[in-house]
Amino acid sequence: MKKSSILIIAALTLTMIEATAQQSLWGGEEIISPEIHEDHTVTFRVNAPNASEVRISGDWMPPEGWVPGSVPMEKDNKGRWTHTTEILFPELYGYSLSIDGFRTLDPNNAFVSRDIATLTNIFIIEGTESDLYRVNDIPHGSVSRRWYNSPGLEKERRITIYTPPGYESGNEAYPVLYLLHGAGGDEEAWISLGRSTQIMDNLISSGKSKPMIVVMPNGNVSQKAAPGEGTRGFYKPAFMVPGTMDGTFEETFTDIMSFVETNYRVKAEKSFRAIAGLSMGGFHSLHISRYHPNTFDFVGLFSPAILPNTNVSSKVYQEVDETLRMQMENGYNLYWIGIGKTDFLYKNVVGYKEKLDAIGMPYTFIESEGGHIWKNWRNYLSEFVPQLFQY
Amino acid sequence: MKKSSILIIAALTLTMIEATAQQSLWGGEEIISPEIHEDHTVTFRVNAPNASEVRISGDWMPPEGWVPGSVPMEKDNKGRWTHTTEILFPELYGYSLSIDGFRTLDPNNAFVSRDIATLTNIFIIEGTESDLYRVNDIPHGSVSRRWYNSPGLEKERRITIYTPPGYESGNEAYPVLYLLHGAGGDEEAWISLGRSTQIMDNLISSGKSKPMIVVMPNGNVSQKAAPGEGTRGFYKPAFMVPGTMDGTFEETFTDIMSFVETNYRVKAEKSFRAIAGLSMGGFHSLHISRYHPNTFDFVGLFSPAILPNTNVSSKVYQEVDETLRMQMENGYNLYWIGIGKTDFLYKNVVGYKEKLDAIGMPYTFIESEGGHIWKNWRNYLSEFVPQLFQY
Repeated sequence: MKKSSILIIAALTLTMIEATAQQSLWGGEEIISPEIHEDHTVTFRVNAPNASEVRISGDWMPPEGWVPGSVPMEKDNKGRWTHTTEILFPELYGYSLSIDGFRTLDPNNAFVSRDIATLTNIFIIEGTESDLYRVNDIPHGSVSRRWYNSPGLEKERRITIYTPPGYESGNEAYPVLYLLHGAGGDEEAWISLGRSTQIMDNLISSGKSKPMIVVMPNGNVSQKAAPGEGTRGFYKPAFMVPGTMDGTFEETFTDIMSFVETNYRVKAEKSFRAIAGLSMGGFHSLHISRYHPNTFDFVGLFSPAILPNTNVSSKVYQEVDETLRMQMENGYNLYWIGIGKTDFLYKNVVGYKEKLDAIGMPYTFIESEGGHIWKNWRNYLSEFVPQLFQY
Repeated sequence: MKKSSILIIAALTLTMIEATAQQSLWGGEEIISPEIHEDHTVTFRVNAPNASEVRISGDWMPPEGWVPGSVPMEKDNKGRWTHTTEILFPELYGYSLSIDGFRTLDPNNAFVSRDIATLTNIFIIEGTESDLYRVNDIPHGSVSRRWYNSPGLEKERRITIYTPPGYESGNEAYPVLYLLHGAGGDEEAWISLGRSTQIMDNLISSGKSKPMIVVMPNGNVSQKAAPGEGTRGFYKPAFMVPGTMDGTFEETFTDIMSFVETNYRVKAEKSFRAIAGLSMGGFHSLHISRYHPNTFDFVGLFSPAILPNTNVSSKVYQEVDETLRMQMENGYNLYWIGIGKTDFLYKNVVGYKEKLDAIGMPYTFIESEGGHIWKNWRNYLSEFVPQLFQY
């Protein structure tokens, strides 16, 4: 045995020492949960010997009013609780557990999404319909978190930017999709809840979509960055933050476009610009695109938050009909609206549709099942993106 | 009232509708936890009326063996449990709760770090010692998740790259620090648990460190990406994965260097290259730097995983003494070793130190309090980085 072998790590020894340590240190358990079976049923397991009742609540269950439904898990004689679902449709699902009425995550599933202030466990049932959400063995784009200067808001702000495969190594200029989040979201929402990276990689790789840059800014003008990522540090995120819907975001949107068109190789012209957003981001997209009525050739309104209000005085919201007409006269390639049949905004969106009809403004209108949920917004993105920049 | 005002969202109305919905939908509670007081005590609160015992376990408590200590929380007559700490030293802390023996996260704190398969809530006590970990109002670098081709491993692999403020808008070439994670980690570990983005931004902004690119690869050769970010999808992460410490990572490390030196404006010469890592990453840094004995002018071994082994036959681990001597003869600027006094690797690292003494190889050796913990690795990074590239 050579003396120098002291330098060579004992993988096995270290595993033994540390695995034992870490198991207790981090509460690890030899439980697999969720276990996704080949037939697309799923078994959940949790070790809670002292609990009297353990329930699982998942977004595949019929909702009970606004609350997702839940079912009791079954206890075995070792204090382990299990539940196996029926066959689930290929989709990205969220769930949580309740232990004697206390909402908790599944301690054996390290994968979560944050929506506003709440974490939810996630898993994917694979299949044709959810293939767009998974990481496949194909070329991958890059995702950068950067900070841009907004003279209009007088601050440096964080922004997420997807560049398609080949961008960094090439010289080509690309079209740009500006993709906006809803109330309670931020520059992380489309990446984590929206699976935008995976959707873009998969659509581009399959040839269904043109390669493009996707710009995901933070639409809350009072924030520099997502909760936890800015100078405010860690704090409890709120659903609505001050100044979010008073026109300031729309007024200062050109700061974002300037940053992108200065810092990236983009085709800086109307025919290669798209803007889309969900809920509040749909509202933002609607107003930004008509406030700059000759700037975007593609507009996507995903469950747009259209509601009456007379309290807001921003110049952005003046002369709506006139600017819509101007947008129509200038021409555009696609004005796409998607809404779920049970969305609480459904009637309002239909009202907006009738307004467009009255003006004579053409649009594409999609009604889907379900309500104001991320499943719909991922689907809308997957339907919208292949229609962009197909020249 | 103008007809067009239908387009303007009622922020208040929407708040009312959705806040109610979301409160029940996501289990939101009007509780602030943790609440960090001005005197640096912290109050935790959790609503668990059905629980008989709620405990909090935090890494500021004296450990009980390998397990961090815990204390009971106190119940009020509304079923809410609270605990207030003593004054805490400025630091990034982790904690979890236990409800009738069931380990859970604090449902009112959305900020977590994943270590291997387990999530832990985090918070920061601000102050001189922890200022490096927070996001300050200074210029920020960019963080990109990219995929590089590794011919040696025959796969596309995910990598995290920090570029300093000014990189994207300038033309300058920068030095590079290769920063490696430990067993159970991946290309996300230094970003989330190590706060490397914040540490680099703060050190560069204060003038303590030179601007540099920081490259954080995935050191587990069998992985394409961190758990959840690769083609395997979501699965339970393991502490050790196959092939991680058999020399393959070291043998193929030049794939990473080639990618960086081809795709970034870097000073591709020894005097502007540093390599450092924690635990397994310290072991990797040790071997990569002597296997390429004239490549790195700065080497950082943070609690390096030095353990005897005779079972591994990679050419990387041959002729250790000879290549260390060659590395010494070629010269280097800094060979830095840090270890905690209660680290389980302490004796082994002292043994390695004696070996270096026997060879006559110069090094800087730092002993800190504590053991094999991220607090030490963040501190080591903060001490190591200001010593790099100071020409």
